[in-house]
Amino acid sequence: MSDTHAHRRDALRGHLREQELDAILVTDLLNIRYLTGFTGSNAALLVHAADEPGAERRTVFCTDGRYLTQAEAQVPDLERVIDRASDLALAKRLGEAGGGDRVGFESQHVTVDGRDALAGEAGSTELVRAPGLVEALRLIKDETEVDALRMACAAADRALAELVEHGGLRPGRTELEVARELEARMLDHGAAGPSFDTIVATGANSAVPHHRPTDAVLAAGDFVKMDFGALVDGYHSDMTRTVVLGKAADWQREIYELVRAAQAAGRAAVQVGTEVREVDAAARQVIADAGHGERFLHGLGHGVGLEIHEAPALSQRGDGRIADGMAVTVEPGVYLPGQGGVRIEDTLVVRSSAPELLTLTAKELVEV
Amino acid sequence: MSDTHAHRRDALRGHLREQELDAILVTDLLNIRYLTGFTGSNAALLVHAADEPGAERRTVFCTDGRYLTQAEAQVPDLERVIDRASDLALAKRLGEAGGGDRVGFESQHVTVDGRDALAGEAGSTELVRAPGLVEALRLIKDETEVDALRMACAAADRALAELVEHGGLRPGRTELEVARELEARMLDHGAAGPSFDTIVATGANSAVPHHRPTDAVLAAGDFVKMDFGALVDGYHSDMTRTVVLGKAADWQREIYELVRAAQAAGRAAVQVGTEVREVDAAARQVIADAGHGERFLHGLGHGVGLEIHEAPALSQRGDGRIADGMAVTVEPGVYLPGQGGVRIEDTLVVRSSAPELLTLTAKELVEV
Repeated sequence: MSDTHAHRRDALRGHLREQELDAILVTDLLNIRYLTGFTGSNAALLVHAADEPGAERRTVFCTDGRYLTQAEAQVPDLERVIDRASDLALAKRLGEAGGGDRVGFESQHVTVDGRDALAGEAGSTELVRAPGLVEALRLIKDETEVDALRMACAAADRALAELVEHGGLRPGRTELEVARELEARMLDHGAAGPSFDTIVATGANSAVPHHRPTDAVLAAGDFVKMDFGALVDGYHSDMTRTVVLGKAADWQREIYELVRAAQAAGRAAVQVGTEVREVDAAARQVIADAGHGERFLHGLGHGVGLEIHEAPALSQRGDGRIADGMAVTVEPGVYLPGQGGVRIEDTLVVRSSAPELLTLTAKELVEV
Repeated sequence: MSDTHAHRRDALRGHLREQELDAILVTDLLNIRYLTGFTGSNAALLVHAADEPGAERRTVFCTDGRYLTQAEAQVPDLERVIDRASDLALAKRLGEAGGGDRVGFESQHVTVDGRDALAGEAGSTELVRAPGLVEALRLIKDETEVDALRMACAAADRALAELVEHGGLRPGRTELEVARELEARMLDHGAAGPSFDTIVATGANSAVPHHRPTDAVLAAGDFVKMDFGALVDGYHSDMTRTVVLGKAADWQREIYELVRAAQAAGRAAVQVGTEVREVDAAARQVIADAGHGERFLHGLGHGVGLEIHEAPALSQRGDGRIADGMAVTVEPGVYLPGQGGVRIEDTLVVRSSAPELLTLTAKELVEV
C-alpha cells in the first residue's frame, strides 16, 4: 500500500509543478487518507513539489498523540510530527523554514477563520488557493480503489440475496426491520458499516425518493424500494432495487420495465468521452418518451468512492466528460405520488471498452 | 416545538443587536436545526435582527426541492424558499434588497471559496465575520434538549443492562460481537443510531483509550471497557463502563476504585462558576496522588449535545467556567500499557444545585 500512496503523491507533485506551487498543505481528512492511508480523525500533510530522496524539504505528516502508534503503522514512509493542532504545526514549519514559498491550501475546505490562523503561523509564506487538486486525482480510481469498491458492492449484493432467501421480505414486517436486517447482513459480509442511511420504502412510501424507514408495515401488493450500500476500507457502495410483494399489478410492471429500460440506456451511455449530461439525457429520454418525464425528479447518478457522493455529477447540470476509471452510479426512478415508485441503481466503473458492473444483483422484476 | 425554535431565534436576535449586525446568514446545518428544527442535508437561514410581525425583512429559510414537504412540516412558521444553492439564494436576496446592511456569516464554518461565492451574490451587503453566535446559545441546553439527552442516555443504559442480563458479556465472544449487540439494543430502545463508533476493548486492549473493536476474544479475568452512546432526536449520549470478566485481581480492583474516586471528584467539581480546568484538575489530582498521573492521557470531559464533542472542553487547556444548563461528560481513565485500563464516564447536566446525572448505570465494580 505504501507504494500506492507514494504513487498518488507523485501524481500530485506533477500538478503542483504545473501550477507553480512549491508545496500544498492538505488538510481534508479524506484527501489525506487517499495520499497516505491514514484513517484517524486529526491530521495534516505538507507535500513539497521538489520532494525527492535526499532533498531538503521532504513531505511531512502530522497527527496528535492519540494516533502515535497508528501513524507509525499506516504512514511508515513519511516524516511524522505529533502535534494536536496539526495544520497549524505544519504551517509553523513553513514559517520557520524562512518563507517566501508559494504554498497551496485547500480553499474549498479551509474555513475563513482557519485560513487566518494558518497565515498567522506561516510567516512570509505565500498561501495560495489551490482547490480540488487531490479531488481531481480521486476522480479516476486506481485498481486498489476499485478492489475496495468491488468488495463493498459484493457485501451489499450478498446482504440482499440472503434477505430474500431467508424470507426477510414479507407482509407484516416493518420498513425499519428490513433496513436493520440489510445493515446487519452487510456487516456479516465485511462491511465496516452502511455507507449511508439505508432507505426501505414500502407501498406509497416508495414514491418518496429519499424516504427514511419507519414502522410502516409491508403489505401484499406493495412495491418495496431498497437503497443501501456498504462501507469497506473507506469506500462506499450504492445500490437500489425495487421488488413487488406478491404478484405485480399491470401499472407496477409497466413502470418497473420503463425504469429498467431507462437504467440500461443510462449504463450503455457511460462511455469514455461522453458528456456527463448526455449520460443523464440518455436515460431521461426513455422516461420522457413514456410520458413520465415529470416523475423523474433527480439526477441520474453521481461519482462514488471515499465519499458516497463525489464528482462527477451525472445530471442535467453536470459538467465534463466520462473518463476511464471513474466510478459512478446510474439510478433513474419514476415516482407516482400516493401510489408507488421504482428506482433501479447500480455502481459501475468506467473502462475503455464497456463499463464494469460492480453491483451484480439481477434487475429483472422480482415478485417475492 | 415551533415556540422553542422561535425562542432560540429571539435570543440570537439579541446577540445580533449587541454586535450591531442587521442580520446573520446561518449555514451550518446543526445550527439551522437548532434554530428551526429542520433535519435535512441542505439549508440556509437568514435571521434579521429587526424581524418582528409585520416588519419588512422577515427571517427566511431555504432548502432544495427534495425537502419541500419536510420543510413545510418542520419549519411551518418561517418563509420558505426552494433553491438548490440555498446559501447563495439567500445571499442573492440580500443583494437584491439594495444592500448596505451589515450581515454576519459563520466564518468558522464557511470556507474561503464559499465566502467569495456569497460575496459575489450579496452585492453591496457588508459580510462580517460572526463566528460562534449560535454555538454560544447551544452551550446552554434548554429543557427540550435535556429531554432528548435524557432519552439518549436511557437508551444506552437499557442496552447495557440487557446485554449483561442476557449474558452478552462472557468469555469466547469477540469485541465486535459485543459492540454490535450494544448498538442493536440501543436501536431497540429508540435510538436512531449509535452516537459514535462504539468502543469495546478487552484485556490489554482496554489500555488503548480509543481502541476500535476487533475480533479479539473476551477471556476470563479481562477488563472489558465499553464506551458508547445513543442518538435520539439529534442529541448524543456518551457513557463508558469497565467491568471484569470473573473475579477481579487486586491490581484491577485498585485501579478501578482509583478511577471511580477520580470520577466522583470530577462530578462533584461540576458546579456553576467553577473554571473548567479546575474541574479537570479535581479528578486529575486524585489519579496523580496515587502515582498514576502519567496514565491519564486525555482531558476529563467535553460538552455534548447536537454534536458528540462540543464546548466546553473540561481539560487542562480548557477556557471558561461551568454554567447552569451545560451538558458535559466526566470521563477519567487510567491505562496500564500491555495490561489493561479503566475508564468511567457519565453524561450530566449542570444545575444550580448539584449536577443531574443522565447516565444512570451503577458504577460499582461489576464482576460478570
